[in-house]
Amino acid sequence: MNRQELIAQIKEKQSFLCVGLDTDITKIPQCIIDEAKEKDGEDYIFRALCEFNALIIDATAPYCVAYKPNLAFYEAYGVDGILAFEATIDYLKEEYPNHFIIADAKRGDIGNTSKMYAESFFGEMNVDSVTVAPYMGQDSVTPFLGHDGRWVILLALTSNKGADDFQYIQDSNGTPLYQNVLKKSLEWGGNADNMMYVVGATRAEMLTDIRKTVPDSFLLVPGIGAQGGSLADVCKYGMNSKCGLIVNSSRAIIYADSTEQFAQVAGQKAQEVQKEMAAYIK
Amino acid sequence: MNRQELIAQIKEKQSFLCVGLDTDITKIPQCIIDEAKEKDGEDYIFRALCEFNALIIDATAPYCVAYKPNLAFYEAYGVDGILAFEATIDYLKEEYPNHFIIADAKRGDIGNTSKMYAESFFGEMNVDSVTVAPYMGQDSVTPFLGHDGRWVILLALTSNKGADDFQYIQDSNGTPLYQNVLKKSLEWGGNADNMMYVVGATRAEMLTDIRKTVPDSFLLVPGIGAQGGSLADVCKYGMNSKCGLIVNSSRAIIYADSTEQFAQVAGQKAQEVQKEMAAYIK
Repeated sequence: MNRQELIAQIKEKQSFLCVGLDTDITKIPQCIIDEAKEKDGEDYIFRALCEFNALIIDATAPYCVAYKPNLAFYEAYGVDGILAFEATIDYLKEEYPNHFIIADAKRGDIGNTSKMYAESFFGEMNVDSVTVAPYMGQDSVTPFLGHDGRWVILLALTSNKGADDFQYIQDSNGTPLYQNVLKKSLEWGGNADNMMYVVGATRAEMLTDIRKTVPDSFLLVPGIGAQGGSLADVCKYGMNSKCGLIVNSSRAIIYADSTEQFAQVAGQKAQEVQKEMAAYIK
Repeated sequence: MNRQELIAQIKEKQSFLCVGLDTDITKIPQCIIDEAKEKDGEDYIFRALCEFNALIIDATAPYCVAYKPNLAFYEAYGVDGILAFEATIDYLKEEYPNHFIIADAKRGDIGNTSKMYAESFFGEMNVDSVTVAPYMGQDSVTPFLGHDGRWVILLALTSNKGADDFQYIQDSNGTPLYQNVLKKSLEWGGNADNMMYVVGATRAEMLTDIRKTVPDSFLLVPGIGAQGGSLADVCKYGMNSKCGLIVNSSRAIIYADSTEQFAQVAGQKAQEVQKEMAAYIK
């Protein structure tokens, strides 16, 4: 999905919500687990993950523009998890082809190895974008560029507490590391059509500073909801004339309810966020 | 495998060689591909990867103390690749239980997600260690600690060209980022019994500096062989009284020959490195 298509989707849905599919078997409603066990016995995990994701997707699709499964949650279940990840991508591609898919994988390795990862995510898995860690520099990131309509989403300023450890360290010119990451990425061929940046909602006040370096780029903003970030602040400091934001919520939507109404409640939660977003878009 | 056991293996084998299992279907000898295709037809990839790895392992096991499959190379083939990765780990555990296994995955995410990765690698995949990227700080790393006999191998100074982009950036005290990573990791509970560091052989002159901060820790050193690093320099600047080094070679060993003698040649190459290492251990 290219930039124009993404912007069109945001306009059409009046939403820049991304639903994080951090699907954890210990948090899935019991009704899904029971049904999967009834059908597949001990090998219930694949079905439970797929079924939960499909119901969450069906309920939230009208209110969001993107889905972001985090690979860690799928890899934790071995091959069954990977198969569930792939089945979820296939389901999205088939039923909701206009939703943007983010593989939240935070990969990054030496050049020839990053090339393997890029082939894996953009070929085999067929996602629109993948999150990439910047620590290893240029040759760890550029193999993900140059794939038409596919995106690198580079970690800049993350939403977790550990972001304080290194990302704010200032160089001798007073430039913090996350700004050095933004600046370098522009030298590598990153631009508003092929690269986005992760900036945590818990760091909303830094968005003004970030917008000076990457005024046109999309920012993927995790951390609203369970992690405590404010959507109002994110929009105030981070929005540009084309919106320029994809705001992710995972736990606050997908685990909002644990009864048989879980999908319906997830849809309601997503709709609430969408309504708030519509107001900011105007 | 704990530190004492690893040191004992190094003494016994007179080697601190790690063989990198960066198994690429386009570089595997044709004889392996042909045989796998004959047996499994179009679904030959799983067998080809497993067969190549097993033959390389059998030929090199006497001369090395560790194996390091890089996940990217397996994920590139989807579920078949993941199955081949798991089968390779199983083969090592069964046939060579005294070899140290490194999952080269370069993971790292917010706390609750890193916890999923740790469970995946130390539980499901049952490896001794996993490489972790430091960019997201403390809560992205500590979930990998506290698993008895398991190790975090934290990226400090990598062997690739892109290492120059951020890892050398000095803070206002003149401390480069890779040193800040080393120092912080010690505050997080990392010590010589549960944490190692990746330091590229192409940066051997920096090892003196690194040894000042982590004198007792093991260093995982990639970059000899195809990437051009010197074993002599790595030993000169990086070795401590317990060796303290695991030096990886991938392409220079596993792809040294592409005929039916490939495994034998890989064994010879590994033995050559082992002999050089034995001299440095004394």
